Amino acid sequence: MSAATPAALSEFELIARYFTRPTSARQGVALIDVGDRTLAVSTDMLIEGRHFFRDVDPAALGHKALAVNLSDLAAAGATPRCFFLALGLPAARPVWLERFSAGLLALADRFDCALLGGDTTRMPAVNGSAGPLTLCITVLGECHRGQANSRRGAAPGDEIWVSGTLGDAALALACLTGETALDPAALTACRERLERPTPRVELGRRLVGLASACIDLSDGLLGDLRHVMNRSQVGARIEAERLPAGPALAAQPAAQRLRWMLAGGDDYELLFTAAPAQRPAVLAAAQAAGVGVSCIGAVTDGPALQVLDAAGKAVDTPFRAYDHFAPDYADHDV
Amino acid sequence: MSAATPAALSEFELIARYFTRPTSARQGVALIDVGDRTLAVSTDMLIEGRHFFRDVDPAALGHKALAVNLSDLAAAGATPRCFFLALGLPAARPVWLERFSAGLLALADRFDCALLGGDTTRMPAVNGSAGPLTLCITVLGECHRGQANSRRGAAPGDEIWVSGTLGDAALALACLTGETALDPAALTACRERLERPTPRVELGRRLVGLASACIDLSDGLLGDLRHVMNRSQVGARIEAERLPAGPALAAQPAAQRLRWMLAGGDDYELLFTAAPAQRPAVLAAAQAAGVGVSCIGAVTDGPALQVLDAAGKAVDTPFRAYDHFAPDYADHDV
Repeated sequence: MSAATPAALSEFELIARYFTRPTSARQGVALIDVGDRTLAVSTDMLIEGRHFFRDVDPAALGHKALAVNLSDLAAAGATPRCFFLALGLPAARPVWLERFSAGLLALADRFDCALLGGDTTRMPAVNGSAGPLTLCITVLGECHRGQANSRRGAAPGDEIWVSGTLGDAALALACLTGETALDPAALTACRERLERPTPRVELGRRLVGLASACIDLSDGLLGDLRHVMNRSQVGARIEAERLPAGPALAAQPAAQRLRWMLAGGDDYELLFTAAPAQRPAVLAAAQAAGVGVSCIGAVTDGPALQVLDAAGKAVDTPFRAYDHFAPDYADHDV
Repeated sequence: MSAATPAALSEFELIARYFTRPTSARQGVALIDVGDRTLAVSTDMLIEGRHFFRDVDPAALGHKALAVNLSDLAAAGATPRCFFLALGLPAARPVWLERFSAGLLALADRFDCALLGGDTTRMPAVNGSAGPLTLCITVLGECHRGQANSRRGAAPGDEIWVSGTLGDAALALACLTGETALDPAALTACRERLERPTPRVELGRRLVGLASACIDLSDGLLGDLRHVMNRSQVGARIEAERLPAGPALAAQPAAQRLRWMLAGGDDYELLFTAAPAQRPAVLAAAQAAGVGVSCIGAVTDGPALQVLDAAGKAVDTPFRAYDHFAPDYADHDV
């Protein structure tokens, strides 16, 4: 992990080393005070062959590209306002573009988030083959000044909550790559979670003032919880049996189930902490937002992240967050 | 230019067809009212092999990637606040990243524009070759609510102005591609204009309330002036002999000189219109901003864009704005 072995630079190290300024708190969403409001901004780049396959349903891609950014705004408790799209396209294919924009704009309409601009470029060919389709979306949301959820307020004794169910997207991916098998109905349901996640915008907004910390789950629960722990300078204890699993996941072997729920990624649920006294308000917020929430553990004052089984015994969790620059993903070095 | 010949879809047609909503005025910068302020947002994607070459000086690339977006804010008269960076990298190369971030952050510091977040991804290989390095920058600026320069206020009788000199970047590119030759000192000066353009942020801010319309020159004067004409529903008359040329360009043959100044692109100067009564205020604003301005023509009420020579005779201008999806750039179809 030194400069002498560049391929071993992790994504987070890379960002920390070259792009971290004293004032820039690295988080999924940036909060910027503008006049009497606070803006929340999230940006993501999605690349063919890395984040999606060439034969992906373009409507699903359009949906997901926007959804992952709206999920960041949801974590902040911000109301989506508008977004910007940059597209690097191997070619202008009308049928593809029509479906892509339909998926993208349907989700945008659902959250009243206007497409206000962007940039399109033809992606050049490499060795005669089409270059990877690349898109970058930046979403802006707003909230009253200073009233956004952050990652740094978790305090020992707070309860740890998660919305929806975990691991469905990872299960779908495992099935699509042949790692496991699912009956068609279960695969369809899980695949919907993988390809068309629902950003928890309404829940996030209702958690402002209730949650002491909030993050959306993109890299897997353990990795994202670590971000909250680092920012809040706390530890955490997760009770494995309280992790919410959907029906397809519940039917899987226990070890794989736990790995998919703790480290699978792509959940786009909210993970948040709140003082125990807020429990009724948290449940009311979830009900009003129309999404289930589960209390899965507690914030501790140590630095440790523990996962306990039903007997209270520590579970080994040799998982890690997805890292684009980790050696196992380093398919070539330049 | 029909759906049956997808490769012939121009960039503007592509955007208009698939991504234009009734509310989205297509322009280089989006203006969004947030509380008591107006936000200006600009986003650009730059792709290796399309916008820059693999062997580009990474510091110059970092500078230019941010500069082109700051230039959009300058046209709006907005004060830069912060920016977001998404990088698709063939590999994490420390030396390259160090130089790239040095160029990027030096310009950011100069305009007090903080890097607040972003996203890095490993660009996958294509057929065993490194995929094209791709970066996307989104810049946010702000101004008092409703007090931004727009493209739509030009009125017949207004004077047309441009800052700095035109065509230097195009001349440098022509020299680098072997189309023409320059002595080393002249090439260095022009190359600086091509690789490290200076966004006219201070001038743009001082033009708020003075200019009836303002745009930055990225695609070439004629193409960008067309945007103002279309948005303002006016015509324009340009006097070729009043176009400002730097010393290297002035030494070039007249026909090429005119083409580079009118259609070369990459100038990143401001083109703006103002009522003749504003002339003293325009000159004072330019002086205060430390940049020269030249009056190059007048807004007319016809739809026509005329370029006149010294004798008042119309000059033929068979040039066009740069278009990423024009057939001459269509290197492959998928």
